[in-house]
Amino acid sequence: MDCYCLLFADYDALDLMGPVEMLQHAGASLHYVSQHGGLVRSRAGFEVMTTALTTLPAQALLLVPGGQGTRALVQDAHFLQALRQWVTQAHTVLSVCTGAALLAATGALDGLRATSNKKAFAWVQGCGPQVLWQPRARWVQAGKFHTSSGVSAGMDMALAFIAGRCGLEEARRIARHCEYLWSENPQDDPFAAPL
Amino acid sequence: MDCYCLLFADYDALDLMGPVEMLQHAGASLHYVSQHGGLVRSRAGFEVMTTALTTLPAQALLLVPGGQGTRALVQDAHFLQALRQWVTQAHTVLSVCTGAALLAATGALDGLRATSNKKAFAWVQGCGPQVLWQPRARWVQAGKFHTSSGVSAGMDMALAFIAGRCGLEEARRIARHCEYLWSENPQDDPFAAPL
Repeated sequence: MDCYCLLFADYDALDLMGPVEMLQHAGASLHYVSQHGGLVRSRAGFEVMTTALTTLPAQALLLVPGGQGTRALVQDAHFLQALRQWVTQAHTVLSVCTGAALLAATGALDGLRATSNKKAFAWVQGCGPQVLWQPRARWVQAGKFHTSSGVSAGMDMALAFIAGRCGLEEARRIARHCEYLWSENPQDDPFAAPL
Repeated sequence: MDCYCLLFADYDALDLMGPVEMLQHAGASLHYVSQHGGLVRSRAGFEVMTTALTTLPAQALLLVPGGQGTRALVQDAHFLQALRQWVTQAHTVLSVCTGAALLAATGALDGLRATSNKKAFAWVQGCGPQVLWQPRARWVQAGKFHTSSGVSAGMDMALAFIAGRCGLEEARRIARHCEYLWSENPQDDPFAAPL
């Protein structure tokens, strides 16, 4: 499977690298892309080399992290237009934390169940008033969209995605390999937002 | 606090980025360094820009990830000589997974308690026969060295380090912020190596 990891200025490091770790062990081919290509700086200050994303190939996964940088991007019409196109092309879309706010701002999640970071939940809801936001969910699958809660929840979501694609035992093998205590139940959300 | 993140070819993404995420939220200034500088490729295929590390400043933390790339580096006398110097200069050294094998290969851990990835434990032990390797430990502190088990254990170790430096409540705040279920007890090791 080909996974396109979408980087942007001030994305959150672990939002991206948690799922990257799990997908790598599932044999995914990982591509690091951005709107314009070149070095992209995370909120944690490291710069990763990216290629400019134009068109996603058939069967591609799109991985969208969150982070401080989403605050500017939900106002960026050019970025959202491009993202809407990539989301339409993607076979599967995975988002972590406030990455769901970017998806919501394109309208792609309208009428679908989704979740996001619980501390930023009110802001995320405002980015997509027609989305069926779930305040108590470690992650949510709705059609081709897999949205997860804040930061660390991306690892649980990625493992659940792998379980669906490659089988539960493969996901558990990867969790053990990473010495990670996988929270297998998406309803088990110790950080649920107040209703 | 200044934290120097030591990158090398084929390091493990989450080994590095898990602790980076936690240290970032504790206000650390993060520096991405390598032996020779330039772009360094992780095992997950992304390239991060680094500066060449010469001398660590006083009070510096040194963060050493593990990963496939350690297999070559434990044979690399030039690298080990440089690492030994950085370890001596560092105020505090944090290692994740097989990063401890690199520290052990310099001799710096001789006579000290340490831990590492549990699946690679026999190999790691061979890299430092004089180290007091702990087969059941999520992480271990011995003097200025904080060594952790495989991959995900680096996040637990980083939070414990932050708790020691900034207080338990600050570490718990960061874990909550990252929606991370911090395993606070270093003896609680579900992935312990067979004795």
